[in-house]
Amino acid sequence: MELNAALQAAVWWSAILLLKLATFGPIVGFTRTKRKVVANEEDAKFKGGATVSTSDPVVERSRRAHLNDMENIIPFIGLIFVYAISGAGDAGCVTLVSQIFTAARFIHTIVYLGQVRQPARALAFFTGLLCNVYMAVKVLLHLY
Amino acid sequence: MELNAALQAAVWWSAILLLKLATFGPIVGFTRTKRKVVANEEDAKFKGGATVSTSDPVVERSRRAHLNDMENIIPFIGLIFVYAISGAGDAGCVTLVSQIFTAARFIHTIVYLGQVRQPARALAFFTGLLCNVYMAVKVLLHLY
Amino acid sequence: MELNAALQAAVWWSAILLLKLATFGPIVGFTRTKRKVVANEEDAKFKGGATVSTSDPVVERSRRAHLNDMENIIPFIGLIFVYAISGAGDAGCVTLVSQIFTAARFIHTIVYLGQVRQPARALAFFTGLLCNVYMAVKVLLHLY
Repeated sequence: MELNAALQAAVWWSAILLLKLATFGPIVGFTRTKRKVVANEEDAKFKGGATVSTSDPVVERSRRAHLNDMENIIPFIGLIFVYAISGAGDAGCVTLVSQIFTAARFIHTIVYLGQVRQPARALAFFTGLLCNVYMAVKVLLHLY
Repeated sequence: MELNAALQAAVWWSAILLLKLATFGPIVGFTRTKRKVVANEEDAKFKGGATVSTSDPVVERSRRAHLNDMENIIPFIGLIFVYAISGAGDAGCVTLVSQIFTAARFIHTIVYLGQVRQPARALAFFTGLLCNVYMAVKVLLHLY
Repeated sequence: MELNAALQAAVWWSAILLLKLATFGPIVGFTRTKRKVVANEEDAKFKGGATVSTSDPVVERSRRAHLNDMENIIPFIGLIFVYAISGAGDAGCVTLVSQIFTAARFIHTIVYLGQVRQPARALAFFTGLLCNVYMAVKVLLHLY
């Protein structure tokens, strides 16, 4: 299957963002190991000395950062493809929106885990959101 | 890239549902601001007078509504595309399933946030679920 | 729209995994009914005798299993498609990665719900993760 330039850009940036998303689970897992806090009894038995808890502040923070990534990256993946295949955006637009979004989401994670003071995280969040809303509106106007 | 009618319908309805999904995060955020309940200490510092809590009933309700949307809309986006590109459904079928699903999910959100008595939410949920299961089964039978 | 063999394999395995994902919500719901533990007051009114709680260990375990499926299956769906359409993987590779991943995720669910002792769940999890990371890296190297 031949890909046009816009679709190829969508594939490239999707792969980067999906790699980020897929590796966030293990990061939460390593945080659990480091904090010796697990969610299941069978995990506590396996990792001697770990406590079963779902309220460790550091672990819960990393879980919220992960969930926020899911809530934003997954709509992005869907939208960048409908944006590219509908022709609402050309290769340059797909690349630009993807670069802004990817930068915003990496900054969001760093700011969230690093507990940087607000409005740093809010700005990163709204930048990513704006990319998603922009693409959805463009696609709807383009096909209307 | 030229889109056939079925794929174009899938793109259109995906854009609407992804727009709904992407804007649900900020709705939860506004609920937090209104209830003066935040999840992180740096947010409490930024919004003077807010309390750090993950147990406010109104905020948690909106979070569950959001999560339920993710659990259902995301499989739908995947399925409507495999349904359209596999040829298991033509443009009319793609549109009809999308309309039913979209209506069901908007009703689900209104009923959930408005705390309408059951089985209103259950009916909306199962209507959406049925659309997803229907498409998956159709695709599998079509390709088998 | 004609599908090449790689894309057809991606469609087939996506349909199976999306069916698994879409039906996990109701499984959590049935667990709630069986345990008589619901998340909302209107649900408690509807199901006489049910308690409103978000801390029942069996329900929370099924919710974690569901969430873990979302965190892994959704990136997989995105990646299997970019892997197939980019040409980074042919039909044989797409099928093989999908079979390994699908087996790993079904084992993960059984092990999680059945409370099998570790490292059973960890092994299933990392097998699935490896499939995702493998595809992302292959796509990025292929397009670079």
